[in-house]
Amino acid sequence: MVREDLKPFFFPESVAVVGASRKPGKVGHELLRNLMRFYKGRIYPINPKAEEVLGLKAYPSIKSLPETPDLAVIVVPAPAVPQAAEEAGEVGVKAIIVISGGFKEVGPEGAELERKLVEVIRKYGMRLIGPNCVGVYVPKSGVNTVFLPAERQGFPPHGGIAFISQSGAFGAAVLDWAAMRGVGMSKFVSYGNKADIDDADLLEYLREDPDTRVITMYVEGVEDGRAFMRALKETTPVKPVIVLKSGRTEAGARAASSHTGSLAGSDAVYSAAFKQSGAVRAYGMEELFDIAMAFDKQPPAIGDRVAVLTVGGGSGVMTTDALSDLGLKVPKLSDETVAKLRKVLLPIASPYNPVDVTGSARDEHLIQAAEILMRSGEIDVIVWLPYYMVPGISPNLNKEFIKVVKEVNGELDKPIPIIGVATGGEYTWKYAKEAEGMGIPMYLSPERAALAVKALVDYGKWLKLHGTYEEYLNRFYSSLKQ
Amino acid sequence: MVREDLKPFFFPESVAVVGASRKPGKVGHELLRNLMRFYKGRIYPINPKAEEVLGLKAYPSIKSLPETPDLAVIVVPAPAVPQAAEEAGEVGVKAIIVISGGFKEVGPEGAELERKLVEVIRKYGMRLIGPNCVGVYVPKSGVNTVFLPAERQGFPPHGGIAFISQSGAFGAAVLDWAAMRGVGMSKFVSYGNKADIDDADLLEYLREDPDTRVITMYVEGVEDGRAFMRALKETTPVKPVIVLKSGRTEAGARAASSHTGSLAGSDAVYSAAFKQSGAVRAYGMEELFDIAMAFDKQPPAIGDRVAVLTVGGGSGVMTTDALSDLGLKVPKLSDETVAKLRKVLLPIASPYNPVDVTGSARDEHLIQAAEILMRSGEIDVIVWLPYYMVPGISPNLNKEFIKVVKEVNGELDKPIPIIGVATGGEYTWKYAKEAEGMGIPMYLSPERAALAVKALVDYGKWLKLHGTYEEYLNRFYSSLKQ
Repeated sequence: MVREDLKPFFFPESVAVVGASRKPGKVGHELLRNLMRFYKGRIYPINPKAEEVLGLKAYPSIKSLPETPDLAVIVVPAPAVPQAAEEAGEVGVKAIIVISGGFKEVGPEGAELERKLVEVIRKYGMRLIGPNCVGVYVPKSGVNTVFLPAERQGFPPHGGIAFISQSGAFGAAVLDWAAMRGVGMSKFVSYGNKADIDDADLLEYLREDPDTRVITMYVEGVEDGRAFMRALKETTPVKPVIVLKSGRTEAGARAASSHTGSLAGSDAVYSAAFKQSGAVRAYGMEELFDIAMAFDKQPPAIGDRVAVLTVGGGSGVMTTDALSDLGLKVPKLSDETVAKLRKVLLPIASPYNPVDVTGSARDEHLIQAAEILMRSGEIDVIVWLPYYMVPGISPNLNKEFIKVVKEVNGELDKPIPIIGVATGGEYTWKYAKEAEGMGIPMYLSPERAALAVKALVDYGKWLKLHGTYEEYLNRFYSSLKQ
Repeated sequence: MVREDLKPFFFPESVAVVGASRKPGKVGHELLRNLMRFYKGRIYPINPKAEEVLGLKAYPSIKSLPETPDLAVIVVPAPAVPQAAEEAGEVGVKAIIVISGGFKEVGPEGAELERKLVEVIRKYGMRLIGPNCVGVYVPKSGVNTVFLPAERQGFPPHGGIAFISQSGAFGAAVLDWAAMRGVGMSKFVSYGNKADIDDADLLEYLREDPDTRVITMYVEGVEDGRAFMRALKETTPVKPVIVLKSGRTEAGARAASSHTGSLAGSDAVYSAAFKQSGAVRAYGMEELFDIAMAFDKQPPAIGDRVAVLTVGGGSGVMTTDALSDLGLKVPKLSDETVAKLRKVLLPIASPYNPVDVTGSARDEHLIQAAEILMRSGEIDVIVWLPYYMVPGISPNLNKEFIKVVKEVNGELDKPIPIIGVATGGEYTWKYAKEAEGMGIPMYLSPERAALAVKALVDYGKWLKLHGTYEEYLNRFYSSLKQ
């Protein structure tokens, strides 16, 4: 089902900011500033005491606007929120985001206020994100309700990863990190107390969203477990969902309960539920996005046989360890394949698996070895470690390597995903980021790359189990072409 | 025992480069260029076919030099190496590094060449690093035999971490990464085939080295297991040793054997040996240096009770999970301590553990909470998550926080180590790096910080067991003052 009701949150043509402020540092000021930075639609600051805010004409109330905005963002103090929502409902607004805190999370009085707010939105058939949240950021439309000061907060570019976060501060920190790391995002949603729209709604929307190739979530607790499970189960045969669930331990659960009031629940139950529903579980922010980056750029794997193709011997050994630790195979190659590799590699190279082209290698050694491995029928994934720093590797390596890999994958029945490792500093990461721009996710260490490979292998199995592998591939490649 | 015989490798007054080359890209050229970049002593290029190399007067042989160099670095092809070593021995050189490959690692012929080389160095009482290695880098003296092109290779500044690597390419990649990350190093040694100087020798030297606070190692295989164990056991009561041992898995061991010819040995034996000898085992490059950075900057912990002090609730929950996963305690605080915290924090703050000062906090909330926690007697370590991006946190936070922490630690019987988490982007990492410069190691994620805390806790126990805790603290703090 396409969730048309959520579209105004992500692609509104006009946005009202109820509680826009002229005072730097205030939420209603910084939020408006961030919104104005990227959003190209019409913005209406609502402030009864101002003529203009940040150069935009201000209006005394939502009722005095020249049009009904598609989206109303509310940042006034909690006690004034139900009334603001009422006015939005009266003029026909269909989507509101309540940033303000002071609701369920502060105790019985706040909970009563939240109940009132929900009553209002039900009355008018509106949908609500929040309260007590950071809201949304959508690079494609420029909608942005993050209220951290623009000087301190980075925003990532458009990309195939959607991120849903129960924690607002953590969500904003992740956006900031993603901007620095160059991780592209399709949608960010911090839903706070999720008085209306929750994880299940968002999964339903993102499942059909052509801009989203992979869904990531930070979750502390789920109220409606059945709905969440159902939404997960319906989503994972279509798109991978990676979940970072905190409050896993006894002490962590206690912490979660004083943070969002979430009952973290038995972790064993969550683990079983994720496994049953085909969601990938991540155990930290780095894992969450390391895995997401692989899904964003590479197809799933059709088996668990991994070739390690390396310029550095030691890193090849560590990669083999890391893959084996996760139950993946780094198989010996057939005599035939070894002979083919020996023919094209340097005499000092090691044509087994890991295929170690050595620090004396040139571009063509990596490229020819990759092609032989891909056509061998003996492996399902390649982890390559190009060591851009050695003298024989040229600045053209990425371009030429990736051209060949794409050609060969085009000819194969089933594509072979490629994952990269780039241990090194500035020069290395200049080229590692170039490779990412061309479609190969790169990791600082073998251990992180191995986790990404494991996710591609497991998800490939899941898709086959559901008979949706071919369909997934078609959608994945056409989405990459957009 | 102070290993005077190793000093010429790290602090020579003059260095000869046998095989210095005028041709860019050649090892003998790039190595000389890197050496000239940092080293302030006298450099003698040896090249019978050149008058000068890179602007330095060249000499036809080591015998024609105006003085006996403290160190000879040999980069000529393998078959010419024993003769070059012989000449160095004749003029009285005491230390040689053989960078050239083509020895034991290539088969029986190379092994014979290596045997000859060892014969020569024994005859003259010389010491040898290599062959088939990247050699040494010592920021303090500027000695540098790394031969990766200077445009592609970064070098870290001086610091308290020594790094010994069996793999040259991985070693160079780590230096390059450390330069980008801002990790300071005291000594780097890539010993290659370790025909003479091995892990045990280097441990013996570094144990007494006043510039080294923590020793890190990348090891694929150890020949003399007893000597290695003995050296580890004698070192760990004095300084922490963190070992990244690869070839852990069956496939990894096979890979190691074709890389360095190392018999990786049973991993269970290594694990038991590390445990018995008090070495910390790391399972990847990031772990290795995450842990090393903690030892470089902070004292060991006297117990396993950890306080989490956070601006972001979600990150506090994840930190609690990560600590609990490793068997560390995040204990409830006493009513008395909770009351003290409540008094200084905002009403919406959570004065339990995690202590969540919330996104509305100001500098003083973090500072006062830290002081209360440190003086409570209820915790042994603090993990703080300052969230530099929120509006109430000022650019002075680090300076003021660290000043108070140092004062309080000065008054306590036993110091409380502080470890930081900074999830975020450019603004956040500008301040995270500032904090590191002031002595608090900062990590991108709670999971990485937790591993560092675990190492501080385990090592504190180890020192107590050996009765060397007080002695360690004295040496640690006086080394920080240098």
